[in-house]
Amino acid sequence: MNKIATTLASIGILLASGSVTAQQAAMDKPGTMAAPAMAAPAMTGPVDRAKILTAPGVFGAFSTYMVRPDYYKLSAAERKGAAAEVMAVVGKHKEKVIVDAYLTRGYEAKSDYFLRVHAYDAAAAQAFLVDFRATRFGMYSDVTESLVGITKALNYISKDKSPDLNKGLSGATYSGDAPRFAFMIPVKKNADWWNLTDEQRLREMETHTVPTLAYLVNVKRKLYHSTGIDDTDFITYFETNDLAAFNNLLLSLAKVPENKYHVRWGNPTVMGTIQPIADVVNKLSMGH
Amino acid sequence: MNKIATTLASIGILLASGSVTAQQAAMDKPGTMAAPAMAAPAMTGPVDRAKILTAPGVFGAFSTYMVRPDYYKLSAAERKGAAAEVMAVVGKHKEKVIVDAYLTRGYEAKSDYFLRVHAYDAAAAQAFLVDFRATRFGMYSDVTESLVGITKALNYISKDKSPDLNKGLSGATYSGDAPRFAFMIPVKKNADWWNLTDEQRLREMETHTVPTLAYLVNVKRKLYHSTGIDDTDFITYFETNDLAAFNNLLLSLAKVPENKYHVRWGNPTVMGTIQPIADVVNKLSMGH
Amino acid sequence: MNKIATTLASIGILLASGSVTAQQAAMDKPGTMAAPAMAAPAMTGPVDRAKILTAPGVFGAFSTYMVRPDYYKLSAAERKGAAAEVMAVVGKHKEKVIVDAYLTRGYEAKSDYFLRVHAYDAAAAQAFLVDFRATRFGMYSDVTESLVGITKALNYISKDKSPDLNKGLSGATYSGDAPRFAFMIPVKKNADWWNLTDEQRLREMETHTVPTLAYLVNVKRKLYHSTGIDDTDFITYFETNDLAAFNNLLLSLAKVPENKYHVRWGNPTVMGTIQPIADVVNKLSMGH
Amino acid sequence: MNKIATTLASIGILLASGSVTAQQAAMDKPGTMAAPAMAAPAMTGPVDRAKILTAPGVFGAFSTYMVRPDYYKLSAAERKGAAAEVMAVVGKHKEKVIVDAYLTRGYEAKSDYFLRVHAYDAAAAQAFLVDFRATRFGMYSDVTESLVGITKALNYISKDKSPDLNKGLSGATYSGDAPRFAFMIPVKKNADWWNLTDEQRLREMETHTVPTLAYLVNVKRKLYHSTGIDDTDFITYFETNDLAAFNNLLLSLAKVPENKYHVRWGNPTVMGTIQPIADVVNKLSMGH
Amino acid sequence: MNKIATTLASIGILLASGSVTAQQAAMDKPGTMAAPAMAAPAMTGPVDRAKILTAPGVFGAFSTYMVRPDYYKLSAAERKGAAAEVMAVVGKHKEKVIVDAYLTRGYEAKSDYFLRVHAYDAAAAQAFLVDFRATRFGMYSDVTESLVGITKALNYISKDKSPDLNKGLSGATYSGDAPRFAFMIPVKKNADWWNLTDEQRLREMETHTVPTLAYLVNVKRKLYHSTGIDDTDFITYFETNDLAAFNNLLLSLAKVPENKYHVRWGNPTVMGTIQPIADVVNKLSMGH
Repeated sequence: MNKIATTLASIGILLASGSVTAQQAAMDKPGTMAAPAMAAPAMTGPVDRAKILTAPGVFGAFSTYMVRPDYYKLSAAERKGAAAEVMAVVGKHKEKVIVDAYLTRGYEAKSDYFLRVHAYDAAAAQAFLVDFRATRFGMYSDVTESLVGITKALNYISKDKSPDLNKGLSGATYSGDAPRFAFMIPVKKNADWWNLTDEQRLREMETHTVPTLAYLVNVKRKLYHSTGIDDTDFITYFETNDLAAFNNLLLSLAKVPENKYHVRWGNPTVMGTIQPIADVVNKLSMGH
Repeated sequence: MNKIATTLASIGILLASGSVTAQQAAMDKPGTMAAPAMAAPAMTGPVDRAKILTAPGVFGAFSTYMVRPDYYKLSAAERKGAAAEVMAVVGKHKEKVIVDAYLTRGYEAKSDYFLRVHAYDAAAAQAFLVDFRATRFGMYSDVTESLVGITKALNYISKDKSPDLNKGLSGATYSGDAPRFAFMIPVKKNADWWNLTDEQRLREMETHTVPTLAYLVNVKRKLYHSTGIDDTDFITYFETNDLAAFNNLLLSLAKVPENKYHVRWGNPTVMGTIQPIADVVNKLSMGH
Repeated sequence: MNKIATTLASIGILLASGSVTAQQAAMDKPGTMAAPAMAAPAMTGPVDRAKILTAPGVFGAFSTYMVRPDYYKLSAAERKGAAAEVMAVVGKHKEKVIVDAYLTRGYEAKSDYFLRVHAYDAAAAQAFLVDFRATRFGMYSDVTESLVGITKALNYISKDKSPDLNKGLSGATYSGDAPRFAFMIPVKKNADWWNLTDEQRLREMETHTVPTLAYLVNVKRKLYHSTGIDDTDFITYFETNDLAAFNNLLLSLAKVPENKYHVRWGNPTVMGTIQPIADVVNKLSMGH
Repeated sequence: MNKIATTLASIGILLASGSVTAQQAAMDKPGTMAAPAMAAPAMTGPVDRAKILTAPGVFGAFSTYMVRPDYYKLSAAERKGAAAEVMAVVGKHKEKVIVDAYLTRGYEAKSDYFLRVHAYDAAAAQAFLVDFRATRFGMYSDVTESLVGITKALNYISKDKSPDLNKGLSGATYSGDAPRFAFMIPVKKNADWWNLTDEQRLREMETHTVPTLAYLVNVKRKLYHSTGIDDTDFITYFETNDLAAFNNLLLSLAKVPENKYHVRWGNPTVMGTIQPIADVVNKLSMGH
Repeated sequence: MNKIATTLASIGILLASGSVTAQQAAMDKPGTMAAPAMAAPAMTGPVDRAKILTAPGVFGAFSTYMVRPDYYKLSAAERKGAAAEVMAVVGKHKEKVIVDAYLTRGYEAKSDYFLRVHAYDAAAAQAFLVDFRATRFGMYSDVTESLVGITKALNYISKDKSPDLNKGLSGATYSGDAPRFAFMIPVKKNADWWNLTDEQRLREMETHTVPTLAYLVNVKRKLYHSTGIDDTDFITYFETNDLAAFNNLLLSLAKVPENKYHVRWGNPTVMGTIQPIADVVNKLSMGH
């Protein structure tokens, strides 16, 4: 088995805005690692995006929405103001949360868009989402799925447990075009998986990691842990600009024995285009 | 196997307002134990919260709700009066039931809030909930899940059957910050579980209990029995202020053989913030 | 194995208004037993409640309902008249059907009430239910579950096949308080069950029956057969005033091998309070 | 094994208006058998009901409907005209399709009525159903289930493959009262079934057939094939006036090994009363 | 095993407008094969239908829709303009996408029509579908299912891996009447399938291919790959004018061992008639 590299899919690293090396560095800062989970840093300005997206102990909330038909019975003028109202709420909470938005209409039957919210404190994420639902656009949106989880430091392919794969991982960098597409895929494993020994699960995750190496250059990944917090064990999140490569990556993950332990992998698989939240609101506000 | 402590998760004790020892004491009062299930004490004032939350034979009703969109078409003034109306109903029934409320919007797709109602008489719980639904806020709420159960005295990790674990349990006390988060997780076991001998199930529950010891300090738990009363065997309820610890507790429960007997564990897992009922109503009444 | 008593759960006897002995006597009348299924006696007045509730070949229809939100937009005066209108329909059909009503609001998410209708002719049950839906209250009700079945004479624990258990059964009488709670629980068994020999199934049903003996004094039971008529094999119906005893009865049934053959047991389990139909309508008509 | 008779359930014969012998004769006409599937005879008048109900290669569409609540907000006068409008559409298509109607309200939660449409050409069935939905009654109806299939000549219990059972079948005639009740039950089998050899499946179908012999006198049956055309392998259709006999017939089918290969048997099981379509519309148009 | 021919079902070739040979030729152009997936050719006019329907790396979006009841409350005049508005949107996007439409009303409970959209760039498909939803007809449509995938070159029955079957395939041509019916059937396989070796899966696909040979003359097929992109592994699409032949083709696929690895095959199976999009809109706009 080739252990010179590993996958981020199993270790919760975001490749959103930098190389693996940079992220690894961020995660290796002792202060960050040792901080009590959920502990929010003193807030004196907007949340540091690069930092919150790489830190462990961060709360992540994914929610998908459908715009109700009666939204389109509002006057075009009323709908035109929707984006500004949403942006005001995002601004109000910018010291506590960061918000990413995705347009899913055309790809999904059960959603028109989804939001990904990060916060050091789960209550702050809720506060934002409650305010968002109180905007006109939020009020005309039905929540169709909501999954929450927290980020953690590496628990399998770590420097200690799997040094070669860990090292290989650090050397790979995303080098594709700016990703236009994102995927949110929940994963739940069965009791047989969880009753394996730590060592057995490590071996399976190494086998899982090897074939994913080739895709570090064109698919970014991030992992959230949800056991007990929601009806899934993990929320996996991906960004890419190459759907064929993404399809091949997921096929390679289907072909390892770990797949036999899945009781949920998708359901839903949510595909969206990455867009500024104002654009998402505006595009969904069209129509006469 | 380390038997110096045990979990409350399997024995139906609430840690809501005191140490295990105090609760154990309450449960050991012969009068309480011997009283016929469902027998309500003579009522001359409000229900004694500490008592009803630790007594066996108590009926517990969990119900999750979504606020319908047309609620937000009521004038802001009408919505402002909603909380007072709800509080009046809570007051009307205060000699028969206690009510806890939780805000779930932002965490859940199928609910905006949930209620937990305790009563010595199941009919009293229904009477309250029927009156609640007749308030304006209740009328604009759709019930999305309803689970009912009863509390019982310890049936596995008792003084007689598992003395060491029982003793260890009594020594642990919740010492974290006041919990802000609550979880409601239904549990149903398969026929193979129920066809084990009592002794076999006791052994499995001991194995289940040991790894949970470490979390008595930061996660409170309470158990309701529902076999035949609802489509679940148990309703497990948790309070915590530490989501990472909670995630780790549930992971430790995933890793014991008992997990192989689960046919339902969650579905839904409901996460909410613990709030006064008036606050829940007010927060869900925002929006123009 | 103790064979001095048996359970009514498996043999379709209603304990609604008398001792087992009386019911057994009713069922033993040759005329009743030999009558062709579905044959209605000549009708010259209201259906004889005691008789129809103990006869084989009777059609039973269970339907659960939710009151739609717009019902509460009717004026209070309009809603006040709802009960009388429903009672008129019950009266119109009283020579063909008997109707029992149950309030489920507060216990169930998918219903506010349910009806149990008995008729010698399935078409008469439908005629009543169609008329009921044409009342104002019926029109504002959505049917959320509907299960139909027929009653049969004993087919396992009969005098011939299992004389000791059959005898024991006759000696037990319900002696609790008037039941306030009712449960409707569908049961479906898998192909392995139905492919057992008659003798094997008889043995399983005897094992099923023995532990239920102790609960004849506080839980009443009735059975309907539905294979092919609906998506369940049986509808089991219970009345009790002691929820803890009921929970223990159902636990004892979970612990016998027969449980391994269940593919449906509940789903839904419907719990309601037994009430006059006018009271059910009136309680669900409250609200301003 | 008694092979002197067989069941129609597995061979797609309708007993709607005659003896098995007559139908068998119709099916044995070489021209009919050899005709290309879906080929419509030259149409110069209404479809010949007896012929289309016994021919192979006929398209059958089953659809269940619920009347939406707002239908009852139309004036009684408007609703009174609904039946005539529906009858006009039936008349318009009478050279291409035949339509049977069934009232399910009172028996089913997810439908108020269902239609069974036969046509030599699947497009003709669609054309009728599209026109039906454009009537006022159709517009106020929601389709809740739709299953389509085609009829075929015998493929197991044929003269060649199972001569004794085939012969026995021809001698049985329905002799009960005119059926008032109809059932529609989808059937899907698993991959293990389809991977048996033809010979093995023939043996299972013979075992399936034998116990059903006794019910040819009081239950009529017809079979439609749907593999690939819809999410079921078969649609089984029954008519009877004796629900107890029907229940026993289906129990006998549950008790043969073939049942172990079922992945869908019902879900839904739809029960209705057989009525002229105008009566169905009128009964569902009542209410003030 | 007869390996002189193969099925297109497993290799993603569209037979929509030509012989296998022509398509194979198109697919064999090195330029097309080597082009990076998703790369759109320079656009100077409408998409070349024949080319996009045979190229690998094409994005395909299938979406099913129901027309909401309130559409029929619009005036007939308003509905009459719906088709032209839809056609304008199709025209606006004709340099980026091609759109096929199908009428499903009468065959399906969960849809009235479905669209199949092809684009070299997934974002272009979304742009069209967002615009479509902003038309009056689109606004009154609810999306009930949405499945997306990409086309790929042969990955099992290729010239290299299975030369005889590949050759046989090239010689077969659809020779039936113009197809009037189309089917969309999702397929998902389990972890055991994906954990077979490539060689084992090739053998299974050869076994799958052989019995389908006979149906190349009357059923056209096309395959889309969706693993990770949606909750299915494949979307299979068929066109035929012979439903009996189509039923037999799918039966033959049910009878090979590959079927034992299916966890989804249909669910939904969507049947529609192939129609110009304007006709679909007009037919669904009828009613007073």
